[in-house]
Amino acid sequence: MLMGRALWRGLVETVTRDLEGTVRTSSGALIPNKELNLLAPSLPTKIVCVGRNYIEHAKELGNTVPERPLIFLKPPSSVLDPGGTIVLTPDSHQVEYEGEIAVVMGRTCKGLNAEDDPMPFVAGVTPLNDVTARDLQKIDGQWTRAKGFDTFCPFGPWIRPVTSFSGLVVHTYLNGKQVQEGCSDDMAFPIADLVRYVSRVMTLLPGDLIATGTPHGVGKLAAGDTVSVELQGVLLENPVGD
Amino acid sequence: MLMGRALWRGLVETVTRDLEGTVRTSSGALIPNKELNLLAPSLPTKIVCVGRNYIEHAKELGNTVPERPLIFLKPPSSVLDPGGTIVLTPDSHQVEYEGEIAVVMGRTCKGLNAEDDPMPFVAGVTPLNDVTARDLQKIDGQWTRAKGFDTFCPFGPWIRPVTSFSGLVVHTYLNGKQVQEGCSDDMAFPIADLVRYVSRVMTLLPGDLIATGTPHGVGKLAAGDTVSVELQGVLLENPVGD
Repeated sequence: MLMGRALWRGLVETVTRDLEGTVRTSSGALIPNKELNLLAPSLPTKIVCVGRNYIEHAKELGNTVPERPLIFLKPPSSVLDPGGTIVLTPDSHQVEYEGEIAVVMGRTCKGLNAEDDPMPFVAGVTPLNDVTARDLQKIDGQWTRAKGFDTFCPFGPWIRPVTSFSGLVVHTYLNGKQVQEGCSDDMAFPIADLVRYVSRVMTLLPGDLIATGTPHGVGKLAAGDTVSVELQGVLLENPVGD
Repeated sequence: MLMGRALWRGLVETVTRDLEGTVRTSSGALIPNKELNLLAPSLPTKIVCVGRNYIEHAKELGNTVPERPLIFLKPPSSVLDPGGTIVLTPDSHQVEYEGEIAVVMGRTCKGLNAEDDPMPFVAGVTPLNDVTARDLQKIDGQWTRAKGFDTFCPFGPWIRPVTSFSGLVVHTYLNGKQVQEGCSDDMAFPIADLVRYVSRVMTLLPGDLIATGTPHGVGKLAAGDTVSVELQGVLLENPVGD
C-alpha cells in the first residue's frame, strides 16, 4: 500500500494506493484517476540531505567520500509537488538534477545508537530530486543557497513502505533518457547508519526527510526539459521552466 | 509593545508586554509575573543564518568577509525556549556561543528587489544565540551538524518591533561578564540587504528567522555556565548543561 497526499474537491486528503492502483482517502472515499491531483506526500519540518554518499558521484565532482556522513539542509520552502515546474533561477547558469532515495520519517526519532533499529521510525522511501545550482554551490562554499531555491526539492508522489533498506534502486531520466542509476547497496554510508547518525544530531519528526545522496551522472537542466526520478516503481516527474 | 509566546494554564498563548511590563494574552487576560512562562516567540519554518557578517569576527576565525552574504540553515528542531538548557553534545569538545540580532518575519516575503523596502515584511528583532560546535564546523566543512544540535538555537523571549535597522546593539554575557558587543551599523551586509537577498532565494514565511551574524568575541561554553544575549532591552538567558 502506497501513501500520499492529494488535493481533491478543494481539500488536502491523506490517500493510499493499493496494488490495483485504486486511490482512496483516509475515510475510504475512492478518488477517480481523472480527479487525482497528487501533492508532495509529507510536510517535512526539515529536509536533511547527505552529500557525497556514492563513491562514483564524489569522483565525478572531484571529491572524495568523507569520513563521516556529510549532512546539509534544504529549506521546507524548496518543496515542490510532483508535476510542478522546477523554476531555474537567473542567479545560476548551471542548475542540475540529483536523483535520490529519500527516507520519510514516520515517528519522532532521537538519539538512536548503533544497536538501535531505525526501521520502526521510518514511514517508507520516496524519490526526491535534490536540484542544485552547481555554480553557486562552488562560489558560496556553504550549500544552502545553491540547494535552497523555491521548487528545488520535488519529491513523491508516493511513500513506499519498506521492510529492508537493501537493494533499493533509483533511476533518473532526462527527457526520457536514463542519466543516473544508483542502488542503496552502493552507498558509502548505508541508510540505517544515516538515520541513526542524523537522529543523534537533531530530533527527526514525522514527515521529515533524509535524502541519502545522489549517484553519479548528475547534469544540467534547461527550460523545456522534463526530469524524472524513479524509485521502486514510484515515478516523480517535473518539467523545468524559467 | 513587545510580542511573544507563553505557556499559561496549560495553553500556549500569544502575548504582549507593554511599557509598564504588563503581559496580556491576545484576548486581553493579564498574566501575573509569577505565572509567566515565556517560550521562543515564534515557530520558524526555517532559521536562515548569515556567516562572517562582521569584519572583526571573520578575522578572529581567520576568515575574510565574503563577497556576498554567506547563508546557512539551522533546523527548527534546534530551537530552545528562553531559560531552557543548552545541552552540550559529547561529539564536540568546543561548543561556543554566538550572540546575534535575529530578524523575525511578519509576512510572507519573496523576491524583493533592491528598491523594495523589507520593513513591512518584518515583525521585529529578537536576540538569538547561534550555538556552534566549532570543532565539528571545521571537520565537516558544511556547518549543518555543528550548528544543528537540539537546543543550539535559543531565541527570544520578546520580539521588539523596529522602525529602523540602524543602531541596533547586541551584547553577549558569559556568567555575567560581557564577551561580545556588536552594532547593526558595523555589519558587512546591512539587515535590509540580507532580507532582500534571502527573499530572492527562498520564500520567507511569518515567524521565520534571519540571524544576521555574530560580532567578534565568540568563546567556549561549559556545563554550569549561564549565557545571555541582550538586544535593545530584551534579555535571552540560558544555562548550559551536559
